[in-house]
Amino acid sequence: MTYTPPIQEQKFLLRHIVALQDFAGAEDFTELSAELSDAILDGVGALAAGEFASLDRIGDTLGATWSPEGVTLPDGFKAAYRAYVEGGWGTLAGPVDHGGQGLPQTLAAVVLEDLGSANLGFSLINMLTPGAIEALKHHGSKELQDAWLPKLVTGEWSGTMNLTEPQAGSDVGALRAKAVRQPDGTYRIEGQKIYITWGEHDLADNIVHLVLARTPDAPVGTKGISLFLVPKFLLDANGDIGARNDVRCVSIEHKLGIHASPTCVMSYGDEGNCVGYLIGAECGGMRAMFTMMNNARLNVGLQGVSVAERATQKAVAYAQARIQSARAGAASRDPVAIIEHPDVRRMLIRMKALTQAARALTYYAVGQVDRAALGVEGAQARVDLLTPLVKAYGTDIGVEVASLGVQVHGGMGYIEETGAAQHYRDARITPIYEGTNGIQAADLVGRKLGLEGGTVFARLIADIRADATGEGALMALTDAVEGVATHMANASADDRLAGSYPFLTMLSVVTAGWLMTRQLAAAEGSDGDPVFLAMKKAAARFYLDQIVPEALGLEPAARAPADILYSIPAEAFAA
Amino acid sequence: MTYTPPIQEQKFLLRHIVALQDFAGAEDFTELSAELSDAILDGVGALAAGEFASLDRIGDTLGATWSPEGVTLPDGFKAAYRAYVEGGWGTLAGPVDHGGQGLPQTLAAVVLEDLGSANLGFSLINMLTPGAIEALKHHGSKELQDAWLPKLVTGEWSGTMNLTEPQAGSDVGALRAKAVRQPDGTYRIEGQKIYITWGEHDLADNIVHLVLARTPDAPVGTKGISLFLVPKFLLDANGDIGARNDVRCVSIEHKLGIHASPTCVMSYGDEGNCVGYLIGAECGGMRAMFTMMNNARLNVGLQGVSVAERATQKAVAYAQARIQSARAGAASRDPVAIIEHPDVRRMLIRMKALTQAARALTYYAVGQVDRAALGVEGAQARVDLLTPLVKAYGTDIGVEVASLGVQVHGGMGYIEETGAAQHYRDARITPIYEGTNGIQAADLVGRKLGLEGGTVFARLIADIRADATGEGALMALTDAVEGVATHMANASADDRLAGSYPFLTMLSVVTAGWLMTRQLAAAEGSDGDPVFLAMKKAAARFYLDQIVPEALGLEPAARAPADILYSIPAEAFAA
Repeated sequence: MTYTPPIQEQKFLLRHIVALQDFAGAEDFTELSAELSDAILDGVGALAAGEFASLDRIGDTLGATWSPEGVTLPDGFKAAYRAYVEGGWGTLAGPVDHGGQGLPQTLAAVVLEDLGSANLGFSLINMLTPGAIEALKHHGSKELQDAWLPKLVTGEWSGTMNLTEPQAGSDVGALRAKAVRQPDGTYRIEGQKIYITWGEHDLADNIVHLVLARTPDAPVGTKGISLFLVPKFLLDANGDIGARNDVRCVSIEHKLGIHASPTCVMSYGDEGNCVGYLIGAECGGMRAMFTMMNNARLNVGLQGVSVAERATQKAVAYAQARIQSARAGAASRDPVAIIEHPDVRRMLIRMKALTQAARALTYYAVGQVDRAALGVEGAQARVDLLTPLVKAYGTDIGVEVASLGVQVHGGMGYIEETGAAQHYRDARITPIYEGTNGIQAADLVGRKLGLEGGTVFARLIADIRADATGEGALMALTDAVEGVATHMANASADDRLAGSYPFLTMLSVVTAGWLMTRQLAAAEGSDGDPVFLAMKKAAARFYLDQIVPEALGLEPAARAPADILYSIPAEAFAA
Repeated sequence: MTYTPPIQEQKFLLRHIVALQDFAGAEDFTELSAELSDAILDGVGALAAGEFASLDRIGDTLGATWSPEGVTLPDGFKAAYRAYVEGGWGTLAGPVDHGGQGLPQTLAAVVLEDLGSANLGFSLINMLTPGAIEALKHHGSKELQDAWLPKLVTGEWSGTMNLTEPQAGSDVGALRAKAVRQPDGTYRIEGQKIYITWGEHDLADNIVHLVLARTPDAPVGTKGISLFLVPKFLLDANGDIGARNDVRCVSIEHKLGIHASPTCVMSYGDEGNCVGYLIGAECGGMRAMFTMMNNARLNVGLQGVSVAERATQKAVAYAQARIQSARAGAASRDPVAIIEHPDVRRMLIRMKALTQAARALTYYAVGQVDRAALGVEGAQARVDLLTPLVKAYGTDIGVEVASLGVQVHGGMGYIEETGAAQHYRDARITPIYEGTNGIQAADLVGRKLGLEGGTVFARLIADIRADATGEGALMALTDAVEGVATHMANASADDRLAGSYPFLTMLSVVTAGWLMTRQLAAAEGSDGDPVFLAMKKAAARFYLDQIVPEALGLEPAARAPADILYSIPAEAFAA
C-alpha cells in the first residue's frame, strides 16, 4: 500500500512545462528559489508517503462515522491533519497579508497531487479550503478577510463549498436556500444542502461553510444567488471560537469510494438562528462561486492524475513481482514476471503515458494561473480555455488508468485487500463532481471555444502547430480539431452539444500530445537520470504514436449532428 | 431496482441474427417451436424480474457468509434457486438422455442473460453448472454420467470449475494439486484451489467440483493435467447422497462486487481422504477443461451484455425522471428531464448501441454452437474464432456501459443506495475471469486467426464485406482489419501480442457492426412495434456512424511493433 512521490517527474515538468524557474525573482514570488521548490517536493512527498498513505486503507474500510454530535474520523486522521497544518503545507500559495507564503499555485498543486495520490478521500479537505480562501480573498470585505483568512490559510479551520440541493445539481440556479438580512447586517440562513464534502468532521477547530442562497425578492435562476460565509462556530469579540452556529450535519452518504471523506447533508437554520455573512454583493454569488469552482476544477483534474499515479505504481509493483507463464516466442520456458509479457507491458506503458500526459496538461494550466497573476498577457484566457479539458480529461484518464490497474492484477485486482479496487472506486467520483464532465464539454463548446472571438483557441492551435512539425498523427489531429471547431462555430446549440464530449477529448489529447512533444524534446537534450529519461521518451512516443490516433477516430462523432439523438422519442429508450 | 426483460429485442435477434426458426424441425431440436421459444422468454423473464431481481441489492449488501460449517446465502436465495430448479430452467439445453430438454444453447443463453441482468452474482451458479454438464457429457464415462448428470441437469446439484491455485492463474500448467490412483479406481485428491465461484453454498443438495490435478509422474505443464469429479457428498449404493467427502471451503474472498457469489478457497484432502473420479483419460484434463471453458467464455461475454442491459435500463429510468435545467437553445426556459439534454442522450444511445451490438455478437456466436451441433459446416470453426471476441468485447462494453450508467446519474450514481454503482462494481470482474481479456487477445492472434490456414478468418471477412456495401466506415474498418491480420501473419510473436488487444477490439467492432447492418436491414423491412424499430435503427446508425470509426483509430496501435514496450527495462516502469 506504499506510495512513492514521483519527484523526478514533478521536477521535470516544473522545469520543462511550467518553467517555474522563470517565476523566481518575479515581484510576486520573491521567496521562490530552486532550493525552496525542491524542499517543498521532498517535504510534502514524505508527508504523503508517510501519514497520508498509511491511512488510505483505514479510511476506506472504516470511513467517517456520523452521530448527532458530529462526524468523526478514524484514529490517526487528526494527527495526520495536524502534521499538514504544522508543516505549513496549506499556507504555500496563501495570501501573504494573511499568513500565506505567496508562492506559486503550481507548487500548491504539487502538494495536493501528492496528498491525493496517497489518500484521495482525505486530501479533499486540503483541496476545498483553498477554494474558500480564494473566494474570500477576491470577494470578501476586509473585515471578513481579517477575521477568517488567517486560520483558513494555516488550515486550523477548514472550508467547504455548499451549492447542491436535491433539486439543484448541475442546475445551480434552481437552488432554494434562503438568506434574510438582519438589522445588524448579518443574514439568517435557512435550507438544506447535499453532497457537502467534509461538511462536518473533527479534524479542524472550526469549519467555514461558503453557502449559496437566495435573498427575498431576488430574481429567479443564477442571477438571484448570493454567497454567504456560514461558520460552524461563531467568533467571539476577540475573534476566537465562540458560540455554536445553527448548522448541523444531519447525515452522511454511503458512497462507492472516497470513504475517508464525509459527504454531508447539511441543515442550516433548523432553529431559525443560523448566522451568515454576505460575501461580495447580494446576487453576486455566481461570480464568487466561479472563483472557487475554477480553482476546484483544476484541482479535480489533478485528482485524476493523483489516482492514476497511485494505480500505476501499484500495478507496476505487482507486475514486477508476479511470476506467471513463460514469455511467448522466447527460448526459455521458465515463467517470468508478468511485466515481461507484451500485453501487460502495453497496459503499463499506457497507464504511464496517460498519467504523464494528463499531469503535463494540468501543471501547464496551473502554471498559466501563476503567469496570469504575474500579468502575463493571454495567460488567464488560456486557463479559461483549458479548465474544462483539465477537469474532464484528467478525471477520464483517472478512471481508465485505475481500471487498467485492476486488470493488471488479474483476479487479485478484484479482491479488496489488494487495494487496486479502491482506486477504481475512488476515481469514479472525479468525472462527476465540480461539474460533470458533460458540463465541462458544454462549457467548452458553449463558452470557451468562442472566447475573444475564437482567438484564444486559435492561439493555442498555433502554439501546437509550431511544435508538432514532424509528428504526423499529432498534425493530423490538429487539423481535425481545427476543422471540428470551425464546424462547431456554425452549428446549432444541439449539434454543438451532441459532439461536445468527443470534441473535448480530441482537444485534450492534441494539447496533451503537444506537451508530450515538448517533453520529448527536453528529454532528448537532457543529461538527467538515464532510466527516468528513457521511460519519459517511451511514454511520450507511445502517446504520440498510439493514443493520439485514437482521438482521430472521434472526429465523426464530434461532427455528428444531433438528429440521430432526437430521431426517437424519449420513451423509446425504454423499448 | 426493477428489471424489465428486453423480450422484443431478444425475439428480434433470435429471428434475424440467430434465425432460430431454421432449427425448428431439425432432428436435434424436435421439441422446438416459436410458441415454446416465446414461452421460455416470457417465463424466465418473469423469474428474473421477480425472485432474482428482488435479491440483487440484498445479495450485494449482505453477501454470502462463511462459517466452519459452510457458506450460507441471505434469506430468499434458497427459495429463488428452488424456483429456478422447479421451473426446469436448467434443463433446457441439457442432454435428453439425462433429463434435459435438448433445446438449442441459444435459448439457454437467453435464460442466463435474463438472470444475469437481474442478479449477476446469483446467476453465476446457473452459469457454472452447464459447464460441468458439458464436460461430463463429452468426456465422462457412462457410469459417471448416469450417476451425476440427472441432478446436475435439473440444478438440484450444482457444478463448479476448479483451476486456479495461488501460483497458477493464467498459467494453468503451473498447478500442483495432486491425484493418486487407488486400487478401487478412484483417486485421492489433495491440494488448494482459489477463486472457486460458488464453491460452497447452501442452495443445492450437493456440489460437484470439477478439479484439475496432477497424477504422480505426469509430465510438467498443461500436458500433465487430469480432470476429476470431486463431490461435496459421495453417493451411497442407491445413488443418493451419502457421506461427506474430504473437501471444504476454508474462506471466501472480500470482493469489489458480485457479493452474492461466494468466491471460495477450497481445500481438498486435508484428512487424506478426498475421493475423486477421473473424467476422460489421465493427462487429458486440458481438453476436457476447454470444453467447460469455451462454454463459459461465451457465457461470460453474455454477462457483460447482462450488466450493460441492466445499467442502461436504470440510467434511462433516471434520465426520464430527473428534471434539471432548461434545454440549451430551446425557447422555453423551463427545466426538462435530463434525457432531453444532448450529451445525456448521447450517453444513453451509446449505452443502447454498445449493449445491442455485443448482444448480437454473443447470440450470433451461440447460434453457431447450435448450428455446429446440427452439423452445419464451418459453424464450429466460426465459434472458435468468435469466442475471444465475445468474451473480451462483451465484458469491455459491460464495464464501459456500467460506468456511463454511473455518469448519467451524476452525484446520485456515486451513492450506493441508487444501485448504479453496484453494476459498476459487479461488471469489473468480467474482463478478468475465464481467461483475462489479454489472454483472449493472445488466443485470437496466436491460435484463432490462423485456424485452417487463415480461411476461417477470411470467410468471416467475406461475409462482412457482402453486407457492408454502402457503409463507408464499416468498409474502411474491414479493410483495416484485413490489413492488420495480414501484417500479424508475418509478425513476430512479440509484435503480434503487442497489437493483439487493439486488434481484438477492431475485429469485434467490425463483426458487431456487420450484425448491426443486418439488424438495420431487418428493421427497415419489418412491421413490428414502430417504437422498438425506431430505437433499433437509431442505435444501429449510431454504432455504424460513431462507434465503428473509433475502432479505426486503433489501427496504428494494432500495427505498432513491440519495440517501444521493450525499449526500456522493466525497472524503468517504477521510475
